[in-house]
Amino acid sequence: MTAMESKKRGILERLDAGEVVVGDGGYVMQLERRGYVKAGHWTPEAAVEHPEAVRQLHREFLRAGADVMQTFTFYCSEDKLELSGNVKTISGAQINDAACNLAREVADEGGALVAGGVSQTPCYVQSHNETEVKAIFKKQMDDFLKKDIDFLVVEYFEHVEEAVWAVEVLKTSGKTVAATLCIAPQGDMHGVPPGECAVRLVKAGADIVGINCHLDPLTCVQTVKLMKEGLEKAGLKAHLMIQPLGFHTPECNLGGYVSLPEFPFALETRAMTRWDIHKYAREAYNAGIRYIGGCCGFEPYHIRAIAEELATERGFLPPASEKHGLWGAALEMHTKPWVRARSRREYWEKLLPASGRPKCPSMATPATEH
Amino acid sequence: MTAMESKKRGILERLDAGEVVVGDGGYVMQLERRGYVKAGHWTPEAAVEHPEAVRQLHREFLRAGADVMQTFTFYCSEDKLELSGNVKTISGAQINDAACNLAREVADEGGALVAGGVSQTPCYVQSHNETEVKAIFKKQMDDFLKKDIDFLVVEYFEHVEEAVWAVEVLKTSGKTVAATLCIAPQGDMHGVPPGECAVRLVKAGADIVGINCHLDPLTCVQTVKLMKEGLEKAGLKAHLMIQPLGFHTPECNLGGYVSLPEFPFALETRAMTRWDIHKYAREAYNAGIRYIGGCCGFEPYHIRAIAEELATERGFLPPASEKHGLWGAALEMHTKPWVRARSRREYWEKLLPASGRPKCPSMATPATEH
Amino acid sequence: MTAMESKKRGILERLDAGEVVVGDGGYVMQLERRGYVKAGHWTPEAAVEHPEAVRQLHREFLRAGADVMQTFTFYCSEDKLELSGNVKTISGAQINDAACNLAREVADEGGALVAGGVSQTPCYVQSHNETEVKAIFKKQMDDFLKKDIDFLVVEYFEHVEEAVWAVEVLKTSGKTVAATLCIAPQGDMHGVPPGECAVRLVKAGADIVGINCHLDPLTCVQTVKLMKEGLEKAGLKAHLMIQPLGFHTPECNLGGYVSLPEFPFALETRAMTRWDIHKYAREAYNAGIRYIGGCCGFEPYHIRAIAEELATERGFLPPASEKHGLWGAALEMHTKPWVRARSRREYWEKLLPASGRPKCPSMATPATEH
Amino acid sequence: MTAMESKKRGILERLDAGEVVVGDGGYVMQLERRGYVKAGHWTPEAAVEHPEAVRQLHREFLRAGADVMQTFTFYCSEDKLELSGNVKTISGAQINDAACNLAREVADEGGALVAGGVSQTPCYVQSHNETEVKAIFKKQMDDFLKKDIDFLVVEYFEHVEEAVWAVEVLKTSGKTVAATLCIAPQGDMHGVPPGECAVRLVKAGADIVGINCHLDPLTCVQTVKLMKEGLEKAGLKAHLMIQPLGFHTPECNLGGYVSLPEFPFALETRAMTRWDIHKYAREAYNAGIRYIGGCCGFEPYHIRAIAEELATERGFLPPASEKHGLWGAALEMHTKPWVRARSRREYWEKLLPASGRPKCPSMATPATEH
Repeated sequence: MTAMESKKRGILERLDAGEVVVGDGGYVMQLERRGYVKAGHWTPEAAVEHPEAVRQLHREFLRAGADVMQTFTFYCSEDKLELSGNVKTISGAQINDAACNLAREVADEGGALVAGGVSQTPCYVQSHNETEVKAIFKKQMDDFLKKDIDFLVVEYFEHVEEAVWAVEVLKTSGKTVAATLCIAPQGDMHGVPPGECAVRLVKAGADIVGINCHLDPLTCVQTVKLMKEGLEKAGLKAHLMIQPLGFHTPECNLGGYVSLPEFPFALETRAMTRWDIHKYAREAYNAGIRYIGGCCGFEPYHIRAIAEELATERGFLPPASEKHGLWGAALEMHTKPWVRARSRREYWEKLLPASGRPKCPSMATPATEH
Repeated sequence: MTAMESKKRGILERLDAGEVVVGDGGYVMQLERRGYVKAGHWTPEAAVEHPEAVRQLHREFLRAGADVMQTFTFYCSEDKLELSGNVKTISGAQINDAACNLAREVADEGGALVAGGVSQTPCYVQSHNETEVKAIFKKQMDDFLKKDIDFLVVEYFEHVEEAVWAVEVLKTSGKTVAATLCIAPQGDMHGVPPGECAVRLVKAGADIVGINCHLDPLTCVQTVKLMKEGLEKAGLKAHLMIQPLGFHTPECNLGGYVSLPEFPFALETRAMTRWDIHKYAREAYNAGIRYIGGCCGFEPYHIRAIAEELATERGFLPPASEKHGLWGAALEMHTKPWVRARSRREYWEKLLPASGRPKCPSMATPATEH
Repeated sequence: MTAMESKKRGILERLDAGEVVVGDGGYVMQLERRGYVKAGHWTPEAAVEHPEAVRQLHREFLRAGADVMQTFTFYCSEDKLELSGNVKTISGAQINDAACNLAREVADEGGALVAGGVSQTPCYVQSHNETEVKAIFKKQMDDFLKKDIDFLVVEYFEHVEEAVWAVEVLKTSGKTVAATLCIAPQGDMHGVPPGECAVRLVKAGADIVGINCHLDPLTCVQTVKLMKEGLEKAGLKAHLMIQPLGFHTPECNLGGYVSLPEFPFALETRAMTRWDIHKYAREAYNAGIRYIGGCCGFEPYHIRAIAEELATERGFLPPASEKHGLWGAALEMHTKPWVRARSRREYWEKLLPASGRPKCPSMATPATEH
Repeated sequence: MTAMESKKRGILERLDAGEVVVGDGGYVMQLERRGYVKAGHWTPEAAVEHPEAVRQLHREFLRAGADVMQTFTFYCSEDKLELSGNVKTISGAQINDAACNLAREVADEGGALVAGGVSQTPCYVQSHNETEVKAIFKKQMDDFLKKDIDFLVVEYFEHVEEAVWAVEVLKTSGKTVAATLCIAPQGDMHGVPPGECAVRLVKAGADIVGINCHLDPLTCVQTVKLMKEGLEKAGLKAHLMIQPLGFHTPECNLGGYVSLPEFPFALETRAMTRWDIHKYAREAYNAGIRYIGGCCGFEPYHIRAIAEELATERGFLPPASEKHGLWGAALEMHTKPWVRARSRREYWEKLLPASGRPKCPSMATPATEH
């Protein structure tokens, strides 16, 4: 079956059939580097201001193999938008509308699904008022339901309680709901362990659960494994999903990469190579995770690396692989013999890339260690 | 004077007036990561195949502050295209035509200039035949002259002799010609020192000379300084230009970053931060260089960092700065106090970013050291 | 009370009185570097072959502040000596005799105590026969009891079971017995956790329990804390002792530093500075440990650093401090201002020492990870 | 010929015969770590205060293969001793006397030669008065001439002019004079290049010239090569000598390791392994240097590594090799297979030792770069 043939099939149909669903990568950080998102509050007004930039990044992820286009609606709750001060004349509803259009337009170019995403709210931390918080999610959901979207994603939640509230609201839509927390293996910000978080989310109605952002791929795989164990112990079932950082963060604690001294403007040296992603994709697959994507730091070529690592399992390569020799094969005709020697899988798997920064350490002290 | 007001003024007018001209960044490596260029031969057929991707990257550089759009015609000589095997049904002339259109279209959106670029040829190394090599440059130049371009750039030459031939051909157009070599402070591949290279290029007719690609910014500033000294000793005058790598390459020798074990698929950890670029822009400016851009590894936010560092000298900020607090200022409202502490110039200037890769070294052994 | 005044008081008298007892450092690795011990089997025949070398190292530790001279009898069981092939004409009894003489001679120069030490046997792993193993400990103990020693130390045991056997034998002497395992926080080689190990050792008769060798100081402090917790839960009491490695081993697992690729001939770059030891001594003290020394990698100046960090608690400085300005104070008269700036505690506490080895990683992969 | 047979032969006889002469290692830094020398002024009063400690270190170097015992008289000029404040009741003459006795006593145990050493004076920098400075050297030389010494060494001079004055004085003794500067390849502190320095020293009467201290072995080999070239150009002849640091100092400049932030109390992580020394000994030999030893950071096992690397050229192994398997051979019987795998030359030659310090950089910024 080709990517095109799976066009009309929903996310659960695909996952129930045991297929690998490749997620897309991170929008806000990549669009920050392209000049369209302001670091700090990271709001998504570019969907209205510069649709061509958002559309292009969607296309690159699609071309790289993504089966899902997430709407560019991160932090697009009214309370967050107001707090940010980034948007004066554009409403959240306008952004949600524009973002849905862009995701749909590009998704239809390649048989991908559109997922409308909601994320944690300032309101939860400030008021801890279930009614108020749920109203925010309801408002954004209603924006989505006016558009042609395939399923909903609850993502980037540090507190499972707020994520549960979001799931409860979004389930009223009748749509499939996926929920990913941005937590560490130690648990959420209230100390609820991952297994228990997963149980709560599934009981609230989530069809797919997992982890996104905040920590590096192998750590996130570890956390999803703990979720899986929690579900198994509770006799519950759900599909597993993962969209981790594209950065190495071995020293991070509960606070995630926000605690690193390099966040957000000096993370370059921590960036994953495509070969790191091959390893991640395999580990995620082996852990039983079938919805595999990325978050901040994942550029199109990282998504392609997921699709290439799992090409046999999926049965096809993504369009962007026409511009990529597997495992460096495109170097085999290079004029320099030492570059030709790099056209082998073993070379890249074994390489320990140097930073070219001898005055820098290899590990930092996260903020909350102090 | 705003960016718009300088719209119709040519490159020499601007440089003669002492203005800083911000160059654009690297196309081939960034488009490889976006899925449109194949590493190895790095040919620019995407100008025809995926114009939207090339247009978008042009726009991002423009928005970041670039005053020049270089046509996406790197390695677009017929001999290189044939050798690459990447393009079967697209001719070099088609690519040149499409690339000129894209550069012009975007340049006109922001008062930028269009520069048609030629680069070194396989023919030079294989035949060393001046007539043949010059015919190749002539053919590409003729493609450019059918279009609306503002000046010509001879770039990415390892041998000054071939660059001189290119300048000689391109000067017949009557257009301004800039020429940048991809050489180290030690000199070109025949051992001709940078000062002598500069003299030969200027004597051949180059109006602007300098360095691009292959080595990190501070090394390239060093090489341009040597060019400047050579010109001064010879009593010659030319404007100075620099478009270095956006990677740290302290251990590189004559062979440049191609010799590094990480080239081309594991260079992430060497990537410059925006703060590294601030330092580079200042050093380049202090060295008397006024055409300051980037090459491979330079993403839009790196170009913005040049424009921000030199905002006082230029008198304005680029459009993309509306999505960027200077020196991290956008973090001053962050909820976490340790993130707010990062909203100061001193913080980012002093930061020594960790790689998160404790099993990797900080320096590699370039291939030719063996 | 001065060091001299405490001369005749036993180890328990000192610890019961709440005094800090400073242990000595590592003999075998230091004598290997001085040319008297052969790495691999690490047997102590130098006590007979080169008594002047052993005596001198004892003196240096005494001068550095050590309150205890351990006999240089590491691995001095007959089965180990025979296995090593290092000693052809010297018996274990001769070594034990000579080593006791040397330790006594130097101890008496400074009011120190002499501890006769036994360590794990090849016999335990090969035969797992309690009678045979106990006979080996009995034989070495009998050698000690012919001499003037103050107490006994059971040290460098990976299996708590064998250590318990050793304690049971040594307690028949009527002497005070200290017992230290070379285990990680995860537990001994059979998976017995540190708390349980401590309980077993104390129940077997050990008066002092703790950790030596195999892992870095802060990890060993962690393990001793776990022992302390185990004893408290069991309602048992014992004094706590620690003699860790003088090397940084953050990536080590159960196998300890033997698993590191650098063991035993390339450990230099992992060596602790004296300032690392200050931190360790304070942490050990704060954890309630009162017998604080070192093992492999601890040179005389590291022992002096323990004595200097705890000088206030002990009430005196060691003799070797007459040749050492506290916290770099001896640099305050240096001719170069940047060296004078290093005569402050803050300078050394904050320094992150560079390795001068840019092609080396900062962490290795221990053998057993494979 | 064995070491013993060469007993009565002088330094020039040995070098003229083309033999390799192995020097001893560094006394002051090693004795600082052993508790007998005070860092800062580094004066050698231990020769009087603790002769057993100095004697033992001499013995270890002898046992490791050293053919020369340098008297422990570093910085033993009256002006330096007074300035230091370290010695109140001991005169320079007493130290010189005691140091000569110790060196002679140990040298005679193994057929080694005794070299009386003088080093640079505070007087030179303060007064720049040739008469005064020469009087200081004359006084120390007269102390030496009362004793049984074989030749004289002028060492650790940053200014060739002062070294020349020392050579001129010492040549009046009729003894062979060796002279080593502690300078970088860039030249002495007045900018006199190494080749010119060598010429001046030989013209002043030095029989042997070279480099000691301040920089790492391979840098010092480079400097001695420049001295050799200078002598060849001038048509002069002299034997070559080298006694470098036992530390990695790749980032050092003219100021040497004193400029490093780690000097003198955090140099551990820069320490050479024995395998680094093998490489150094071979490079020094290949450069035509025949007097090969070490300075600060060289412990007995580093000297043994020189003797082992050049065992074939010398025809014998040193005594301490009886406690050392060549290239790790002593590990071939280890119980753990991964340790046995380290009993091969290839293993240790290829090993890139990790620091275990992920928060530390690999290179520092020397003081004078600021």
